[in-house]
Amino acid sequence: MKRPRSWSTCSGTTRRRTAPLLAASWRMWLCTCCSLPVFAAWICRQQYLPSWQRTTSVSGSKPWQVLGRRAVYASAWVGVEQWDVRLPDGSRIPDHHVVVYPVDAVGVVALGADGRVLLVDHYRFMTDSRSWELPAGHVDEGETVEQAARRELLEETGHNAATWQQLGSFYPANGSSTLKFHLWLARDLSAVNSNVDTNETLGLQWFSAADVRASLHRNAHHDGLTMAGLFWWLSLAGSAAQP
Amino acid sequence: MKRPRSWSTCSGTTRRRTAPLLAASWRMWLCTCCSLPVFAAWICRQQYLPSWQRTTSVSGSKPWQVLGRRAVYASAWVGVEQWDVRLPDGSRIPDHHVVVYPVDAVGVVALGADGRVLLVDHYRFMTDSRSWELPAGHVDEGETVEQAARRELLEETGHNAATWQQLGSFYPANGSSTLKFHLWLARDLSAVNSNVDTNETLGLQWFSAADVRASLHRNAHHDGLTMAGLFWWLSLAGSAAQP
Repeated sequence: MKRPRSWSTCSGTTRRRTAPLLAASWRMWLCTCCSLPVFAAWICRQQYLPSWQRTTSVSGSKPWQVLGRRAVYASAWVGVEQWDVRLPDGSRIPDHHVVVYPVDAVGVVALGADGRVLLVDHYRFMTDSRSWELPAGHVDEGETVEQAARRELLEETGHNAATWQQLGSFYPANGSSTLKFHLWLARDLSAVNSNVDTNETLGLQWFSAADVRASLHRNAHHDGLTMAGLFWWLSLAGSAAQP
Repeated sequence: MKRPRSWSTCSGTTRRRTAPLLAASWRMWLCTCCSLPVFAAWICRQQYLPSWQRTTSVSGSKPWQVLGRRAVYASAWVGVEQWDVRLPDGSRIPDHHVVVYPVDAVGVVALGADGRVLLVDHYRFMTDSRSWELPAGHVDEGETVEQAARRELLEETGHNAATWQQLGSFYPANGSSTLKFHLWLARDLSAVNSNVDTNETLGLQWFSAADVRASLHRNAHHDGLTMAGLFWWLSLAGSAAQP
């Protein structure tokens, strides 16, 4: 009977066949031995790095696991869902409310050539509050965040900017919603027109860094996006001024 | 016919009656004349004050007027309403969505005796994000904001604080919701127990001001409440350090 090619015995033919396999196994073993210290060093480095520099994977085994989602209210602007979640201690909440936002928003820290910031006098009917805010608004469908930032700056202040820098993004209410905000820094503003959206903009004014710091400490700005953007700008400016 | 007492003529009796009234009118006129310059001075001062120091009343004639509210989803945690609003240009939106939160939340910038801040390793399933956050949570029914701050600090970190200072409050998403956040600064922490809520707290760590500033600039903190609180603390510390 002719043996199939996959059969192997200790004959000379099979020894010739297994020799390259053994050599490959040796190379794999050596490679593993050599890489172990590198891996161990990486582990040690992770321990001593500031915690936010550590490589943290939450995708593999997330501390809170989402088992299901059910919409209880839906609209083009905002929705409410109930999520079925398993907590780290193994307990389960089958109907945790989550406010779901279909679009992000962006705010602009807009600086003139003299270093002052341009703010918008804004009244918010939902909270019945009025204060000086960053130009800001939703990212429209088909727009990038930067395009939305440029559009909002123009619509609410009538200005363009020569230089744009992304500061970062954050979740303003991550204990109850999926809403995401982005912050951009725009420099060297120039006035383009005065056709600002008068529903959004009740007034415009330039403020120095010292005035803004004082007003932030007095809690004179009432919205989180403006506070985050202005504090971030002042902090960067302060760091740059340090020797 | 006997006249009622309220009738008056130019008789001697009525002159005796009107004399005190005339004197009172003179006093009122004098008082008005004297107070006018004071009022004018107040008006002038308002013009030259930084805008956020001006007394702005929005209660009399609000730029956006709420004409009605209609609930479209309600729960103990969050609701959605449609508000009928008139805009500054006179146009009307009969069904503007508003996310309504029945309770506020509070975050604590918690400092040890050495000036470092204690942060909580927190995973947020709604945004699938994990970062170092302030101890924070809802203000429960019947609690003051300060009581909630003390409770959340203890529950999430196992610490009490000797000194408490209110930083301020803000609306994290005032273009879409009524949610309100409060920030408190707690100093001189002391460990009370280690029974922290392991669902909320995945880890605890102390960070220096320099480390926090660097991580904020790198956008390593993902939630707005933490960013506002940490930036506020750093800004106050920076101002205090200046000559």
